[in-house]
Amino acid sequence: MAASGSRRSFDGHGSVSNSEEWRDVTDVGVQTDARVQGLAPRLSKVNLFTLLSLWMELFPKKEQEHRRKDATADSGLVVVQECKVLGLHCSSVQLHAGQVAVVKHGPRLKGCDLYFSRKPCSTCLKMLINAGVNRISYWPSDAEISLLSTDNADSRHQDAILDATAAERLKSNSRIHICVLLQSLGSNMLQFVDETSQNCEFLEKIAADNLDVADVFKQERLNNLSDFSGRFLVEDEEQHRYVLNKMGLENFCVEPNFGNLRQHMKDLIKILASVAAGVPVLQRGYGFFTRDLQVLGSSALPQDVVRHCIIQARLLACRTEDPKVGVGAVIWAEGKQSQCDGTGRLYLVGCGYNAYPVGAGYAEYPQLDHRQEERQNRKYRYILHAEQNALTFRSTEIKDEENTMMFVTKCPCDECIPLISCAGIKQIYTTDLNSGKVRHDISYLRFNKLSGVQKFIWQQKCSDFEEQAAPQISTTLHQRSDNVEVLSVRGRQNHPE
Amino acid sequence: MAASGSRRSFDGHGSVSNSEEWRDVTDVGVQTDARVQGLAPRLSKVNLFTLLSLWMELFPKKEQEHRRKDATADSGLVVVQECKVLGLHCSSVQLHAGQVAVVKHGPRLKGCDLYFSRKPCSTCLKMLINAGVNRISYWPSDAEISLLSTDNADSRHQDAILDATAAERLKSNSRIHICVLLQSLGSNMLQFVDETSQNCEFLEKIAADNLDVADVFKQERLNNLSDFSGRFLVEDEEQHRYVLNKMGLENFCVEPNFGNLRQHMKDLIKILASVAAGVPVLQRGYGFFTRDLQVLGSSALPQDVVRHCIIQARLLACRTEDPKVGVGAVIWAEGKQSQCDGTGRLYLVGCGYNAYPVGAGYAEYPQLDHRQEERQNRKYRYILHAEQNALTFRSTEIKDEENTMMFVTKCPCDECIPLISCAGIKQIYTTDLNSGKVRHDISYLRFNKLSGVQKFIWQQKCSDFEEQAAPQISTTLHQRSDNVEVLSVRGRQNHPE
Amino acid sequence: MAASGSRRSFDGHGSVSNSEEWRDVTDVGVQTDARVQGLAPRLSKVNLFTLLSLWMELFPKKEQEHRRKDATADSGLVVVQECKVLGLHCSSVQLHAGQVAVVKHGPRLKGCDLYFSRKPCSTCLKMLINAGVNRISYWPSDAEISLLSTDNADSRHQDAILDATAAERLKSNSRIHICVLLQSLGSNMLQFVDETSQNCEFLEKIAADNLDVADVFKQERLNNLSDFSGRFLVEDEEQHRYVLNKMGLENFCVEPNFGNLRQHMKDLIKILASVAAGVPVLQRGYGFFTRDLQVLGSSALPQDVVRHCIIQARLLACRTEDPKVGVGAVIWAEGKQSQCDGTGRLYLVGCGYNAYPVGAGYAEYPQLDHRQEERQNRKYRYILHAEQNALTFRSTEIKDEENTMMFVTKCPCDECIPLISCAGIKQIYTTDLNSGKVRHDISYLRFNKLSGVQKFIWQQKCSDFEEQAAPQISTTLHQRSDNVEVLSVRGRQNHPE
Repeated sequence: MAASGSRRSFDGHGSVSNSEEWRDVTDVGVQTDARVQGLAPRLSKVNLFTLLSLWMELFPKKEQEHRRKDATADSGLVVVQECKVLGLHCSSVQLHAGQVAVVKHGPRLKGCDLYFSRKPCSTCLKMLINAGVNRISYWPSDAEISLLSTDNADSRHQDAILDATAAERLKSNSRIHICVLLQSLGSNMLQFVDETSQNCEFLEKIAADNLDVADVFKQERLNNLSDFSGRFLVEDEEQHRYVLNKMGLENFCVEPNFGNLRQHMKDLIKILASVAAGVPVLQRGYGFFTRDLQVLGSSALPQDVVRHCIIQARLLACRTEDPKVGVGAVIWAEGKQSQCDGTGRLYLVGCGYNAYPVGAGYAEYPQLDHRQEERQNRKYRYILHAEQNALTFRSTEIKDEENTMMFVTKCPCDECIPLISCAGIKQIYTTDLNSGKVRHDISYLRFNKLSGVQKFIWQQKCSDFEEQAAPQISTTLHQRSDNVEVLSVRGRQNHPE
Repeated sequence: MAASGSRRSFDGHGSVSNSEEWRDVTDVGVQTDARVQGLAPRLSKVNLFTLLSLWMELFPKKEQEHRRKDATADSGLVVVQECKVLGLHCSSVQLHAGQVAVVKHGPRLKGCDLYFSRKPCSTCLKMLINAGVNRISYWPSDAEISLLSTDNADSRHQDAILDATAAERLKSNSRIHICVLLQSLGSNMLQFVDETSQNCEFLEKIAADNLDVADVFKQERLNNLSDFSGRFLVEDEEQHRYVLNKMGLENFCVEPNFGNLRQHMKDLIKILASVAAGVPVLQRGYGFFTRDLQVLGSSALPQDVVRHCIIQARLLACRTEDPKVGVGAVIWAEGKQSQCDGTGRLYLVGCGYNAYPVGAGYAEYPQLDHRQEERQNRKYRYILHAEQNALTFRSTEIKDEENTMMFVTKCPCDECIPLISCAGIKQIYTTDLNSGKVRHDISYLRFNKLSGVQKFIWQQKCSDFEEQAAPQISTTLHQRSDNVEVLSVRGRQNHPE
Repeated sequence: MAASGSRRSFDGHGSVSNSEEWRDVTDVGVQTDARVQGLAPRLSKVNLFTLLSLWMELFPKKEQEHRRKDATADSGLVVVQECKVLGLHCSSVQLHAGQVAVVKHGPRLKGCDLYFSRKPCSTCLKMLINAGVNRISYWPSDAEISLLSTDNADSRHQDAILDATAAERLKSNSRIHICVLLQSLGSNMLQFVDETSQNCEFLEKIAADNLDVADVFKQERLNNLSDFSGRFLVEDEEQHRYVLNKMGLENFCVEPNFGNLRQHMKDLIKILASVAAGVPVLQRGYGFFTRDLQVLGSSALPQDVVRHCIIQARLLACRTEDPKVGVGAVIWAEGKQSQCDGTGRLYLVGCGYNAYPVGAGYAEYPQLDHRQEERQNRKYRYILHAEQNALTFRSTEIKDEENTMMFVTKCPCDECIPLISCAGIKQIYTTDLNSGKVRHDISYLRFNKLSGVQKFIWQQKCSDFEEQAAPQISTTLHQRSDNVEVLSVRGRQNHPE
C-alpha cells in the first residue's frame, strides 16, 4: 500500500493492485500503443474514459428532456472498441444509456469495453451481457436506479434494491468483467492540468481582451467543483457506504479502501472541474461564432453543445504525448435518424489527441522544436496531430449528406487542412490564435483560406454576427446567473439578450 | 445405434454420430451460447436452420416468378454467420439461391454456414467454395437441377447427371464441408410443437370468435403435411435411392441409414406442418390489418408474405429457452435495390427468440413467474426478449429511409416498445391478445399508445379496413380452394373478394 | 545467385532471397489461394500489384490537376487487404496518394499491404505507420519528394534530404516492413505477355478491319517503352545510385544487386508497355462506344479513363490460372463525394481474373475445352470467371444510386450476365467479339439481350454515335501527336474533332 501519489486501481472485486499490474491497461493510448513517457504527466486511458463518461452525463439537453417519468437518473456512457472510442452516449427520455448502446451499435458491441457514469440497471445489464461486451466499468457513486432514499419503505426504493440484487446475479452468472475501474493520478497531474487549463488558448483569447484570466478561471473552477461534487459524490459517507454495500461492493466499505476510493473520485472530479474551466460558460459574450456570410445550409449548434464537445477535446488533450502542447480533436455528425440518444441527432464520428506513431518507444523520436541548427531533430516531422488521429481512427464513415463537425482545441495547421477539407468535414469549431502565423516549423497559413468549411471561432460576440448566426442556447447545466452577471457587464452592452 | 427417439445426426460422409459428439453443434443458440436445458424440448440449431431453408423455398411469389425457362427447381437458403442468421433467401427467375447469396453478401460469405433446401448446382457450388464459406448443408431430397426424370435419355437428365458429377468433384477438391446435416428430434418434440402451435395466440384469437380451433388446426396441419411431403419428399423409395446415389450419398442408401434418414425428414416436415398450421391460411377473413387511419407512406405487405414471415418467427420460437412461453421475432426491410432475390425487395435485418443471457448455464437464473412472495426470483428480470435479440444481433443497420418491419409472435411488452420505436422500426405485425394488460410482472400498456409505428394486428377483417388497407394477395403456394370454401362461409360475406 | 531467369526478389533490407523463400508471397492469388501451376507463366502477386501502382501513377487527369504548387511528384498506390485489392489511388492536387488512403480508408488500413510507385514522403509515412498498415512496398526510383536536383544547394533539395532522413527514422522505429519488393519474372514471361497482348481481342477487332496489327502493336509498344522508362527509371546510373543511397538503400548500390535491380525494373516496364499496347491510344477512331439510344442518365466516361481501366483489367488477366485464356475484370463506381483522390469521383469496387476455386491444387480440375467425347472433363464447370471474382471479392457494396461500371477484357458469358445485371452494374465496357456465339460449351447469347445495363463496345467510332455519346478526352499522358497523325488518316475523316 503505497502513498497516495502512487498509481493504484480498484476493481469490482475489491482488490487494490499497484501500478505494475495495471501497466497494460494504463499505458495503452487511445489510438497509439505508444510507451513514450515524457516529462509531463498523462491521463491514463481508464481515467480518460471515466472522465468522458462523467462529462457525457452532463450533456446539455432541452427542457423537456429532463422530464423523466420514472426515478431513473441520467447516466453517461463511453463505448470503447480496441482502444478506439466507438460512441459517446447519455440517457434520453425514452432510453437508458445502455439501451442507447444496444440500439445504436447492436452486434458491434461484442468485445467492447463500456464506461458508465452510474451502475446501469439490470435490464440494461442483461442486454449488454447478451450482446457480448468485454467489460463494464462504472463510477462508484449512486446507481442509475437510485439507491438513496429518504423513505426505506418506499416502493421505488424496494424496486431499486431488487434491481441491484438482479444486477449482482447477472454479474455472477456471466463471464463479463463488471467492475469499478479507477486509477490514482500521477503525483503532479492535478497541478499540471490546472496550469495547462489556465493557459489554454480559449482563456488566452480572453486575456488578450484585458481580462483577469486567473480570476475567471479560479471562479469557474470553483463553481464546477461545487456542481460536479454535488452530482458525482455521495456527500454523506455513511450513505455512500450503504450504496456501495447494496451494489455488492462491500470490500470498498472498509479502510483504507473506502478512503482511497473517495480520494480518487475527488481527484478525478478536480481534473474535470479544471479542464471544463478552460472554456468558461459564455463569459462576457464569448462563444463560437462564424464570419462566413453564406451559412451553407447547415446551421450552427447551440453554444452549450459546442462548449460540451470542445471540453471533450480538452479532456482528450490531457493524454497527449507531446511534452509541450496537448491538442485534442473530436468529430461529431448530425444524423437524419430520429432521436433515441440523449445527444439527439448528434453522433460521434471519431476523436484523437496528438501523439507519436503507434509503437514508438520512449524518446525514440525527437522532441525538440526550437533550435534552428538541428533541423532534422524536430518533432514536427514525427508527431501525429489530434485531427489526423481523429480522422484515421474514425468509428464510422463521414457522409456527404450530413453535417459533420470537428471540434479542436487549437487552430488546425497546414498539414491538416487538406485532410480535413477532403474528408468532408463541414464545420470546424476552434480558436484562431495561431491562424496566419508560422511557429516552430509549423505553419497555420491555410486555415483562413480554407473554403467549403464553415469556421466557428472562439471570440466575443459582436453585433455583426447577430443576424447570420444566432445560436439558440438550450438549458445549460448550471444555474449561475450571479456569476454571469458580474462578468458580463461589458459584454451585455454588446449583445443585449 | 439407439432407438429412434435418441439424438442422432447424418452428414455427407455417411457417418451417424450420436448426440454427445454433436453437442457443440446442437446446443449453441442462435444468439445465445446458452446451455440451459429446461423441461420443454428445444429445436436444435441445425434443425431450425434446415426448417427455415425449407420454408424459404415456399416464399410466396408473384405469378410470373414461377415461369422459369430452365428445369431448375426453386430452392431456399439460410446464410448463418457465427450463429447469427445473415440472410434468408430463395431462388428468383434470374438467379439460383446460391447466386443470390454471392450477389447479396459477396465477401461476407467467408466462414459462413449455408443451409439449402436442395443440393445446389455445380455453378453455385464453385462460387460458394471460392467465396470461402465454411460449410454447406443441404436437404437430401431431389437436387436443384432435378435428377428425377421419366426419360433417362433426356438431354436435360444427362445435364443433371453431369452437373451432379461436377458437384462431387468440387466437393472432393475443396476443404469445405458439404454435407447432409439432419438431427433427430427429442422424444417429445413433435407432441410439444403440436400443442404449442394449437395454443398459439393466433389460434387463440380465432377461438375467441367461437370457432372450433382444434378442427381448424387439424385440417390445416393435414393440408400442410400433404403439400410439404409432396414437395420435400421423394415418395418412391427407389427413386429416392437413385437420387441419393447420383448425389454421391451411397451410404445413405443402405439400411438402417436410409430408413433413419427418411424418418428424420418426415419428422421435420411434421414440425413444419404444425408450426405453419398455427397461422392458418386466410381463414374466414383473418389476416393482419391496421386501424391506423393515416397510412404513413409505406403500405402493407401482401397477406401471404406477412403470414410467411410470421411463421418464420414461429419456427424461431421453437428454440426458446423459456420453459413456458416461446416467442420469435423477425425483422425484414424493403430495400430500394432492384430485384434479384426471390424475396423481391425484401431483405432480412435480424431474427431472434427469447432466451437467457449468453453463457447462462442450466438453472442459473430463476424460471418462476407466479409466486408473489418471491419477487426477486422471477425470470422477467433475466430473460432476453425475442425482439431484443433480433435488434441486438441484426445483420445490417436499420435505414431510416426504408420500411423496416418486425414480425413477432406475441404483443411486444413495455420493455421492448421504446427499443423498437427508437431503432427505427416502421411497422409491427403481431397479435394484441395481451395488449393493455399486466401479466406476471410484465406490462403491455405501451403498445396501444405507441405512435410513429404502424401496427398490423391479427384479426378478422371487417369492412372498416377495406379502404385504407387492402393488401393484395399474391399467388399463394397452396391450391386448396375446397378447404377455404368450407371455412369461409361467414368470412366471405364480410369481404367479398 | 542463379541466372536471370530464376525467381528472385529484393527487399528493403538489401537481401536477395530465392524463390523458395518467397513461395508464400509469390503463389498466392488475388482472390484464390490456388497453387495451380499451368504451362503458361503467371505474373506473381507482388509484381501485379507493383505494376498496378505504376499504372495508377499514370491515371489520366484534367489539365488543372497537373498544376501542383510544391515539388511533389505524383504517385500511384495499391491498397491490398488479405490479398484483396481495397483501393487503387493516385495523388491529387490537394493530397498525396498516402493521404488519400488515410482519408478514404481510415481504420480499414490496419493490416493492409501498400504498393507505392514512389517512396512516400515522411508525413504520409507517419500517418500510415500510425494507422497500423502491415507493409509498405515502393518502386525504387526517385522518391515522391524528388531527390534528383540540378542544384545541390537548392533549399527544396535540402528539404527532400531532410524528408528522406525522417522517413528512415520512422522506418527504424516502427515494426512495419517498409521495403522494395520486386520479383524477377519467369523465363518466358516477357514473350508470353507480348504474344497474348498482340492477340488480345481489342487488337483482333482492329485486325478484322484489315489493319496491320503487328505494326500497330509494335509501334505502340515502343512508344510506351520510351514514355514509361523516362518516367519510372533514373536513366543515369550514378544518379540512381545517389537516390538509392539517400533513401537508405545502400546495399542496392553494389553489384550484383544494382544490376539486378535495374534489370527487374526494366523487365516490369516492358510488361507494362506490352500490356498497354494491347489497347492502343485512340487509333483510327477506335474507342468504347454505345449503340443504346437512351443513355440512362449516367453518361460515358472519357475515353482515356476507360482505356486506363481496361488496361488495369488486362494487367489482372496476366495472373490467370486458365491455361488458354486470361480474362480480367475491374469494377469502378462514381461516387457523390467531392474530389480528394486523383481519380476524381471514381473509386474501385472490386477486381478479379479467371481462376480455379480457392484451394485448388495443380491439375485437380480438368483443363480441357475441346474434345466433345469427354463432356464431364471440361474446365468450364470449374473455372471461376473474372467477373464472378470481381463481384464476389468486392471491397464495398454496390450502391443503386451510383453509376457502377464493369471493365472486362472479354465479352461476358451467359453465366455471368444475370450476376452482373442483378448486382446493380450500370455500364459495361468490353469487346463483343464472341457476342451471340457459343464457343466450347460457353455461350454468349445473353449479352445482346441484356437490358438495363449500358454496353460500351470497343469499335471504330462512326458518325451514328456522335450525338448520343461524345465522350470528352481529357489531357492524355502522352504527347505523341506525330504517331496519332500517321495512324489517324482514315479515322480523322470519320470523326473530325
